[in-house]
Amino acid sequence: MSDPVYRVIEVVGTSEESVSKAIDNAIARAASTLRHLGWFEVAQVRGSIEDGKAKRYQVTVKVGFTLE
Amino acid sequence: MSDPVYRVIEVVGTSEESVSKAIDNAIARAASTLRHLGWFEVAQVRGSIEDGKAKRYQVTVKVGFTLE
Amino acid sequence: MSDPVYRVIEVVGTSEESVSKAIDNAIARAASTLRHLGWFEVAQVRGSIEDGKAKRYQVTVKVGFTLE
Amino acid sequence: MSDPVYRVIEVVGTSEESVSKAIDNAIARAASTLRHLGWFEVAQVRGSIEDGKAKRYQVTVKVGFTLE
Amino acid sequence: MSDPVYRVIEVVGTSEESVSKAIDNAIARAASTLRHLGWFEVAQVRGSIEDGKAKRYQVTVKVGFTLE
Amino acid sequence: MSDPVYRVIEVVGTSEESVSKAIDNAIARAASTLRHLGWFEVAQVRGSIEDGKAKRYQVTVKVGFTLE
Amino acid sequence: MSDPVYRVIEVVGTSEESVSKAIDNAIARAASTLRHLGWFEVAQVRGSIEDGKAKRYQVTVKVGFTLE
Amino acid sequence: MSDPVYRVIEVVGTSEESVSKAIDNAIARAASTLRHLGWFEVAQVRGSIEDGKAKRYQVTVKVGFTLE
Amino acid sequence: MSDPVYRVIEVVGTSEESVSKAIDNAIARAASTLRHLGWFEVAQVRGSIEDGKAKRYQVTVKVGFTLE
Amino acid sequence: MSDPVYRVIEVVGTSEESVSKAIDNAIARAASTLRHLGWFEVAQVRGSIEDGKAKRYQVTVKVGFTLE
Amino acid sequence: MSDPVYRVIEVVGTSEESVSKAIDNAIARAASTLRHLGWFEVAQVRGSIEDGKAKRYQVTVKVGFTLE
Amino acid sequence: MSDPVYRVIEVVGTSEESVSKAIDNAIARAASTLRHLGWFEVAQVRGSIEDGKAKRYQVTVKVGFTLE
Repeated sequence: MSDPVYRVIEVVGTSEESVSKAIDNAIARAASTLRHLGWFEVAQVRGSIEDGKAKRYQVTVKVGFTLE
Repeated sequence: MSDPVYRVIEVVGTSEESVSKAIDNAIARAASTLRHLGWFEVAQVRGSIEDGKAKRYQVTVKVGFTLE
Repeated sequence: MSDPVYRVIEVVGTSEESVSKAIDNAIARAASTLRHLGWFEVAQVRGSIEDGKAKRYQVTVKVGFTLE
Repeated sequence: MSDPVYRVIEVVGTSEESVSKAIDNAIARAASTLRHLGWFEVAQVRGSIEDGKAKRYQVTVKVGFTLE
Repeated sequence: MSDPVYRVIEVVGTSEESVSKAIDNAIARAASTLRHLGWFEVAQVRGSIEDGKAKRYQVTVKVGFTLE
Repeated sequence: MSDPVYRVIEVVGTSEESVSKAIDNAIARAASTLRHLGWFEVAQVRGSIEDGKAKRYQVTVKVGFTLE
Repeated sequence: MSDPVYRVIEVVGTSEESVSKAIDNAIARAASTLRHLGWFEVAQVRGSIEDGKAKRYQVTVKVGFTLE
Repeated sequence: MSDPVYRVIEVVGTSEESVSKAIDNAIARAASTLRHLGWFEVAQVRGSIEDGKAKRYQVTVKVGFTLE
Repeated sequence: MSDPVYRVIEVVGTSEESVSKAIDNAIARAASTLRHLGWFEVAQVRGSIEDGKAKRYQVTVKVGFTLE
Repeated sequence: MSDPVYRVIEVVGTSEESVSKAIDNAIARAASTLRHLGWFEVAQVRGSIEDGKAKRYQVTVKVGFTLE
Repeated sequence: MSDPVYRVIEVVGTSEESVSKAIDNAIARAASTLRHLGWFEVAQVRGSIEDGKAKRYQVTVKVGFTLE
Repeated sequence: MSDPVYRVIEVVGTSEESVSKAIDNAIARAASTLRHLGWFEVAQVRGSIEDGKAKRYQVTVKVGFTLE
């Protein structure tokens, strides 16, 4: 059997709730069009501010998946 | 109308509860003296330990705001 | 009295629940064999994916403690 | 309505004229096959030299776009 | 005479024209409220995209000035 | 003729034999679905350990190719 | 009582004597207008050269202080 | 069953033969006193030179293992 | 025929006009004493400020050339 | 004879006197429990401030030693 | 006797065979015009691709040597 | 008059006394063969250890000078 090869893509998930939800959104979106997602890594956490409060978290996530 | 210009400052929010609360505290404090806050970016997450547990989260946040 | 000296070690805590729980696990495990833990710093947040969802968070934490 | 999710890809635009033209070329090329481009970030500026002069600028640009 | 001390602040200039104009705007805005600006350093070049073209350059500039 | 534009993608090749074979696998896999591959750059070398030995090398490679 | 919040500013101290004196100058100057300074971190050490000798050390120091 | 926790240590393996052999030596040495080694990551590749040739490769490897 | 080997040197070009002109100056100066210049990479863009305006751009450029 | 293998640990030395003394303290403490220390590298210089003055230098030092 | 001083230069070795051969070529070329080479450090590994295969490895190596 | 152009070289000064002396040695050595040295920047501070003490500081310094 051949050696596994993976691809890594960069996705930015967002959420008004939390950093975790933003990560979840990024992964869920990637999973809607790609199969065999294997791991993720958080590259950056930022967000918008409105009325002196964090309004929307924007989390850049690298997602790795197996190439068939 | 002239081109917008922003300033970015570095604030460390802390919280005994969670990383999110520390971020909120940093932004809220900045908002108490500055107007037109627009975005933030997490630069570092650290904290103190007491009795073998995370005691207080210290989150360094860069905060951007419009210069009028 | 002599000047304090610290050591810093790198621990990866994991959790299926949240990033915070993974940090807590890393610190708790370090505390089970080391005394005088003083601070921590998050170095990396990553995790495994299963069925299109974050399955297990893996958080690399640097932990500092006083050398007696 | 669901939370927006973005993807970020890396494109290298080139130009014999200027760094700006190389950036424009990278964005224009990305726009020819992708919709909803939202932002870019310059990651690297380099180029080839011929006859003791900059011959062609090669600018690596990260381009973010909304995933529908 | 005492040794000079400087402060460094972070400003984001923007322009629809060019990266250079964005830098100029950042410096001009800083100069409108601060005296003795001495040097700058470009920290990041990014921008928004509209209709498949760079719409507005956003250049993060560190600006140093003498503290009197 | 128009200015060439390239895209850069991130691929992780693996091999039980060597780092070089892992790089080759990454490039070969990319070449199986993409044309005009032009260059690569090694971003990270890691691997799994079994029985006290390197079991499988995992090499993250950035691969650049011409966009037609 | 509310959670402490800090601010971090960047100051460049200089000295013809030594790196340490340049750090001291940066902190002393910050202390002349700000209260509750708590910690510093050296970000860069550079300097000018005259007649083949280090003429003036320029040390960039990040200084953190409590926001009241 | 509790969540796994890992530790990461830094080891420098050396070899007069090759970079690969230096990595192997680092892992083998770690394996001689630690159990449950799981993964490694190459942090730096350097070496000494003698008579105009690479004499000994020195490869810094981060090694992760399960804490029981 | 033997494998090509290159050297990379660091040059700082300056210009009162523009960043591009500063890059050109760096390359032209390198070309006045070195042959076979092949490529360049921008490492840093900074400059001096006078009267609230960018006075002189200082661009650090890495220049690669073939060793014969 | 087998190829030497080294380990690298991270130690934070502190001193109210100077950065040098803090480095010395870190090395001396490491030497009190480890043999065959070979080299060190300064990773970070920071410190606490009291009464507008550097109170205690905290220098993070990586220390390498031979594994027997 | 005076304290040794070293210089560090950046050389890119290439090879169609392997990364190791590219490193060797870089060092051998440096050794042909410089004496007292002492150590090297790999800064970057990249290469060209032809027909879906690594064609030529290009390894950037920093080489240190004693100044007499 | 033409725009000044500078070159930057990397030198490692060493000293058994102190970090400062190592910097001075690097600059003095560079000054013995180069004219118009203008500035330096410390890139790395490391050293050898003997008998549980810092034996010789090795400080990597980037030195900039005007090209005539």
